[in-house]
Amino acid sequence: MSDFTSWLSQPPKALDNHAAEHALSRQSQLTKPAGSLGKLEQLAVQLASQQGKTPAADNVHITVYAADHGVMAENISAYPQSVTAAMIRNFASGGAAISVLAKQLNASLDVINVGTVIPLEEIKSVQDQRIANGTANFHQQAAMSEAQCEQAMLIGRQNVECCQQNGIQLYIAGDMGIGNTTAASAMACSLLDLPAEQLTGPGTGLNADGIRHKARIISESLSLHNDQLDSALSVLRYLGGFEIAAMTGSYLQCAKSGLPVVIDGFISSVAALCAERICPGSRDWFCFSHHSAEPGHSVILQALRADPLLDFNMRLGEASGAAVAVPLLRMACALHNQMATFEEAAIAGAIN
Amino acid sequence: MSDFTSWLSQPPKALDNHAAEHALSRQSQLTKPAGSLGKLEQLAVQLASQQGKTPAADNVHITVYAADHGVMAENISAYPQSVTAAMIRNFASGGAAISVLAKQLNASLDVINVGTVIPLEEIKSVQDQRIANGTANFHQQAAMSEAQCEQAMLIGRQNVECCQQNGIQLYIAGDMGIGNTTAASAMACSLLDLPAEQLTGPGTGLNADGIRHKARIISESLSLHNDQLDSALSVLRYLGGFEIAAMTGSYLQCAKSGLPVVIDGFISSVAALCAERICPGSRDWFCFSHHSAEPGHSVILQALRADPLLDFNMRLGEASGAAVAVPLLRMACALHNQMATFEEAAIAGAIN
Repeated sequence: MSDFTSWLSQPPKALDNHAAEHALSRQSQLTKPAGSLGKLEQLAVQLASQQGKTPAADNVHITVYAADHGVMAENISAYPQSVTAAMIRNFASGGAAISVLAKQLNASLDVINVGTVIPLEEIKSVQDQRIANGTANFHQQAAMSEAQCEQAMLIGRQNVECCQQNGIQLYIAGDMGIGNTTAASAMACSLLDLPAEQLTGPGTGLNADGIRHKARIISESLSLHNDQLDSALSVLRYLGGFEIAAMTGSYLQCAKSGLPVVIDGFISSVAALCAERICPGSRDWFCFSHHSAEPGHSVILQALRADPLLDFNMRLGEASGAAVAVPLLRMACALHNQMATFEEAAIAGAIN
Repeated sequence: MSDFTSWLSQPPKALDNHAAEHALSRQSQLTKPAGSLGKLEQLAVQLASQQGKTPAADNVHITVYAADHGVMAENISAYPQSVTAAMIRNFASGGAAISVLAKQLNASLDVINVGTVIPLEEIKSVQDQRIANGTANFHQQAAMSEAQCEQAMLIGRQNVECCQQNGIQLYIAGDMGIGNTTAASAMACSLLDLPAEQLTGPGTGLNADGIRHKARIISESLSLHNDQLDSALSVLRYLGGFEIAAMTGSYLQCAKSGLPVVIDGFISSVAALCAERICPGSRDWFCFSHHSAEPGHSVILQALRADPLLDFNMRLGEASGAAVAVPLLRMACALHNQMATFEEAAIAGAIN
């Protein structure tokens, strides 16, 4: 068995039930009516069961994986492909949404170019790990070779390994890649066995005609590769993108090694679904941040039994929704760890 | 006209439409697909229109108003009345949810005792402004005299005036008062002309029998005072509480003087509804933080045309839900103020 195959076959780390019980018991002793902090209580208990100790979300890392998509040849986006590179420069210079949010959260931020269509100049604080000049056009052939898909997933794995060496407590992956809602929708159709019409949306801003065309391209691509789409890994290779494969690899590594993840929006959830299909049980390590405005997101969230924290009508990607949810996790931890118990506050024994 | 009457009759400050247009225009120039930050964009524009300049939510003030309720004689709560005082001590010593959240937000916190049933010892960082030994039992008589209701409202007004002298950018009021969901439900029934059954819930934890009894007490009280409940001010005086009146006064002062408010949950929304009825247009100054687990909250939010930021199944009060929403406002401001424009990022003119 290759190192890659052996890695894939490792199960997710088990949650710490003892820590979960301890956290639940503490929640019942804090000076509030039982359950009155609602979801914040669940978040603290979930983090405790993942981290196996006092929950904490202080040290947060965000990685944005960026790449281009061959399927752009089919005219499936409102934006030109040059925007992927322009946004990479914008991440690096601090002007993008995720740059602002990472600073606000005091989170570390990696930007990894896993395959823009042309090489970029050297950019400080951007890691050049280009696998190829974008993926191939999956309307005509597999998006990635087996080796490319593996390489992309291992980039994600390695990124998470670094984070763990650096004491990161919460991992976030985001995507940048003009055309990638087409890839993600195609993957979701195949993973969930649903028609393209149900999972195709406007992405960055297609009109109704554009959405119909995009759905047709996806539908034709699903037919073309039908015989090959027999595993989640194949779905990723034939229909995905380098950044989606890297995200999937990072999520798998988080689950296998026990680092809690905050999942972003549509693209991120498709990568999460793919990780869950490759390695069942991975979702125990995922916290879903927000319900995206992209119409297909609901179906994917349902398939993952996910109930996201926010419904802000966001649809930017870049990990922006996940970043916005971080302070909610931090407050859940602060309440859990710092509130007084009834005993400490010497509040009348009558309360329970 | 008395000073109080003249204050009440002042209209809310008008929003700054010029600042709103400026903010909207800036949002359209930031490096993201138009509208892709969803509610975060709306929050930034709303704050800009309230503050008349670059939106900011750094300096946040939280006041918890605490008081006891005469209607506790009717056995309408799962908790004993002594908990109000015990929680005041817990706020002061830093062990309550709102104490932890205020610290986490670096927000200033006032705790004002506007009328516990017995006087408390001197407590550092608690303001003793007791109006009486709790309100009267509104199942038998008006909860407050006219003078008491006015006094409570002016405590809220004065608190906001202090905040404005201190450069506060965002105001939050919270409640503590065992029995106060009964008062708030009764007020909401009267203000919205709805039956008690529709707006009565478990509060801190009544069972089904307890809720039926509570609804009956509210229903009988509404009948008793029916002829007097001819204005929002009367509703507040006959059925409210000192802390609810103080919150209402604070919200009115915020609206009249132009300080944005984050509204908390059930009690807080009833105070907001009362303020809006006393001084129509006040709601322009309110941002609704969360949808409470208390069943009647939905109806009150609808009446205020409110679409809260969070739905976390919280039902603690103390301003806890409003506090949890503050980082969302701060991130909305950071994105609005710090993201690069397309021009600054020199991104292809093709994007719009």
